[in-house]
Amino acid sequence: MALVTHGNSEFDRDTAVTRRAPGVYDAHLSAGWTIIQAVNGGYLLALMGRALGDALPHPDPMSVTAHYLTASVPGPAVIRTEVVRTGRTMSTGTASLIQFAEDGSEVERLRVLAAYGDLGALPDDVRTTAKPPAIPPYEHCLGTDSSPGGRPAIPGSTAIAERLALRLDPATAGWAVGAPSGKGEMRAWFGLADGREPDPLSLLLTVDALPPTAFEMGLSGWVPTVELTAHIRHRPAPGPLRVAITTRNLAGGFLEEDAEVWDSEDRLVAQSRQLARAVLQG
Amino acid sequence: MALVTHGNSEFDRDTAVTRRAPGVYDAHLSAGWTIIQAVNGGYLLALMGRALGDALPHPDPMSVTAHYLTASVPGPAVIRTEVVRTGRTMSTGTASLIQFAEDGSEVERLRVLAAYGDLGALPDDVRTTAKPPAIPPYEHCLGTDSSPGGRPAIPGSTAIAERLALRLDPATAGWAVGAPSGKGEMRAWFGLADGREPDPLSLLLTVDALPPTAFEMGLSGWVPTVELTAHIRHRPAPGPLRVAITTRNLAGGFLEEDAEVWDSEDRLVAQSRQLARAVLQG
Repeated sequence: MALVTHGNSEFDRDTAVTRRAPGVYDAHLSAGWTIIQAVNGGYLLALMGRALGDALPHPDPMSVTAHYLTASVPGPAVIRTEVVRTGRTMSTGTASLIQFAEDGSEVERLRVLAAYGDLGALPDDVRTTAKPPAIPPYEHCLGTDSSPGGRPAIPGSTAIAERLALRLDPATAGWAVGAPSGKGEMRAWFGLADGREPDPLSLLLTVDALPPTAFEMGLSGWVPTVELTAHIRHRPAPGPLRVAITTRNLAGGFLEEDAEVWDSEDRLVAQSRQLARAVLQG
Repeated sequence: MALVTHGNSEFDRDTAVTRRAPGVYDAHLSAGWTIIQAVNGGYLLALMGRALGDALPHPDPMSVTAHYLTASVPGPAVIRTEVVRTGRTMSTGTASLIQFAEDGSEVERLRVLAAYGDLGALPDDVRTTAKPPAIPPYEHCLGTDSSPGGRPAIPGSTAIAERLALRLDPATAGWAVGAPSGKGEMRAWFGLADGREPDPLSLLLTVDALPPTAFEMGLSGWVPTVELTAHIRHRPAPGPLRVAITTRNLAGGFLEEDAEVWDSEDRLVAQSRQLARAVLQG
């Protein structure tokens, strides 16, 4: 296996942006991060994070909010950024993801508002009551090639499944065999399939990479994200990540989905919450 | 007591904005919603929400993210809004809160990105695992006039305390008598002191109106908000609200604070999360 560095991984190649003017970047939305036809929201978030990391003076995303306005499609795109404020320890910026209609008119896909800082410069103290999720060992969890009954554990997964090393806790994967638990919980091991180690940018992908909790609540429809906010709390240590997602409130056709991401040293490295629409069929 | 309607309450008067041009509003930051010298972040969020509710075609805030850039001060301000997208059921906009330095230069205080919709048009189904917080009856909780030992239950509270009917669960108010529990939890009954009933806009105040969880974790310093995102999930029924705030992760000089707000009919009407700086002294 070729050495995968942050420079030549699938993730880095597909989130690369080219500055064509101050604050303006050319990008290409890869078809490699799609689910059915949709471009994964976490991949788009990381792409925007890449551009903002260049536009702002601080290196690491600390709080990133994205509003998903229209459905992105694989192909060329432009990211326009604005520096809102530059402080000593943090800076704030916005970013818009633009694609073009057949007639050449602009269509905005995402609007992002984010605060960047330097996670490496923070004090190392931890006072937390949070515990990593209880999840079986990696080899006892379910990937796309290891589901009970011989069918893929992640039905409907397409291109993105090949780029992720995702292993679901069997206790939260009942939906994959037609027996959802009814609880709004899902847990998984997460890595990038080519071995690229996690960093703050890739955590923006991680927080939106699991199947929706709605599946385990017995819903089978599409669950489009309206808004997602991710807080990156620490630079992740090398090794596999554990992700726990939970939904407490499914009401009025909307649900929130909270994600926590833990690194191999048992640190809570990211927290996120998204508001999504639920198509109530179950 | 005079009849307080949504039109003449302290909250409505102090969040009023005047449109002076399309998308541009004059506002006045009231000194009535300050804590020590600082203008309360929830009050500012509601003020911005008022302007966006006028600028956007949909009435109710559904997801509102604010980045707190510089410290607001009581006095005149301008809010500039931009409509990002108008859809059939939801619309998206941004807002900037501007104040002016002595030399007349602009200083941006807040940048907001928000999605609005019509909460009254959503289906009424609820599938949720969330339960209201266990909190003693209102009369057994602690206000500014009822603390043990005769000193105010909310030390340092100033103008805003007179405008809120806030009663803390004694189990989470140990910090007020020098005996914090060490847990990142606080619970309270919440209302507006003049009897104005809750609505989606006032919930933006409610999610940031309690003393910080950090106090109950043994910290005594200032806890400035970097970013706060609120999801308004349902129009609240009349009557007192219950608010539970929790912190799971205090690390690297930052903490998240999650709020849940429940109405008198036991519905989860708002969820929020903020990322705040902690000054570690304890």
